[in-house]
Amino acid sequence: MSDFIQQRHKLSTNLVHPRELIVACVPMRSNVNISQIARTASACAVEKMIICGTASLTKKIARDAISELTVSTHRSLGPVLKKLKEDGYDIVGIEQTSNSKNIHHFDFKRRTVLVVGNERLGISDEILAQLDSVIEIPVWGLPHSYNAASAANMALYEYCRQFPEG
Amino acid sequence: MSDFIQQRHKLSTNLVHPRELIVACVPMRSNVNISQIARTASACAVEKMIICGTASLTKKIARDAISELTVSTHRSLGPVLKKLKEDGYDIVGIEQTSNSKNIHHFDFKRRTVLVVGNERLGISDEILAQLDSVIEIPVWGLPHSYNAASAANMALYEYCRQFPEG
Repeated sequence: MSDFIQQRHKLSTNLVHPRELIVACVPMRSNVNISQIARTASACAVEKMIICGTASLTKKIARDAISELTVSTHRSLGPVLKKLKEDGYDIVGIEQTSNSKNIHHFDFKRRTVLVVGNERLGISDEILAQLDSVIEIPVWGLPHSYNAASAANMALYEYCRQFPEG
Repeated sequence: MSDFIQQRHKLSTNLVHPRELIVACVPMRSNVNISQIARTASACAVEKMIICGTASLTKKIARDAISELTVSTHRSLGPVLKKLKEDGYDIVGIEQTSNSKNIHHFDFKRRTVLVVGNERLGISDEILAQLDSVIEIPVWGLPHSYNAASAANMALYEYCRQFPEG
């Protein structure tokens, strides 16, 4: 008899505070990536996601994020990030830049906007100039980068690890 | 002038030891998921991956994992996990089960096989009986589960966070 009996679709963990994390994607190439990020964000109980331009979620991939996440669409991220900064959010991008911090040693603030870059172009100079911090996920092998959705996934995991109760 | 200047495709971090982590996937539905896991594993400098049945990697998604990862294909995971256990590997599954441990509080052993379950069926009873530990990634919202590749991604991130030098 195994010690481990499947209990799939267990009840979720309760948060003590609502998540004060917002995920904001620059204009991206792939709605698949955006939908994967949305699914993970929703399972993490993130309530808000910002996407740009003509991006949209695919129900088959995003699953319950379609109904659970409030997704707002903007022409570009600049003005909305400015507003969120005024509202006290720490604006944190995932990118490889000068003066970036290793995510392993980065303490997120509870009230954070996580900015996800384009698959090919990353985060533009204009948006980089609005960030409070840039975090990098270490890479040890080829290809010397993670897929954009995978990187967002890891950052969501790390944020939730630091705030398991919201 | 922004503090943050893009430095995409920076050199990777060096490992002090080769990674003693092996990723093993049960027979899965989607080669896309397997290929996404392979890309992340390769970027983490994992050297070996085990897949089952007719699974294969898609170059467009797996990228350099095609050349960098040693991928071995087996009919089923049972015999190969038995052999790896004899070789001193800790066999750890990602699944929702009784007696599972929250990944946030789980100390990986360096020499680990990470077992990834099927998208719908998870890890079978037969394979669960071979595991030393089961880890769960907390879920706070709907859908009450992560995509299989996303969960594998997060577990790879956590392992590498614990062993940044290999």
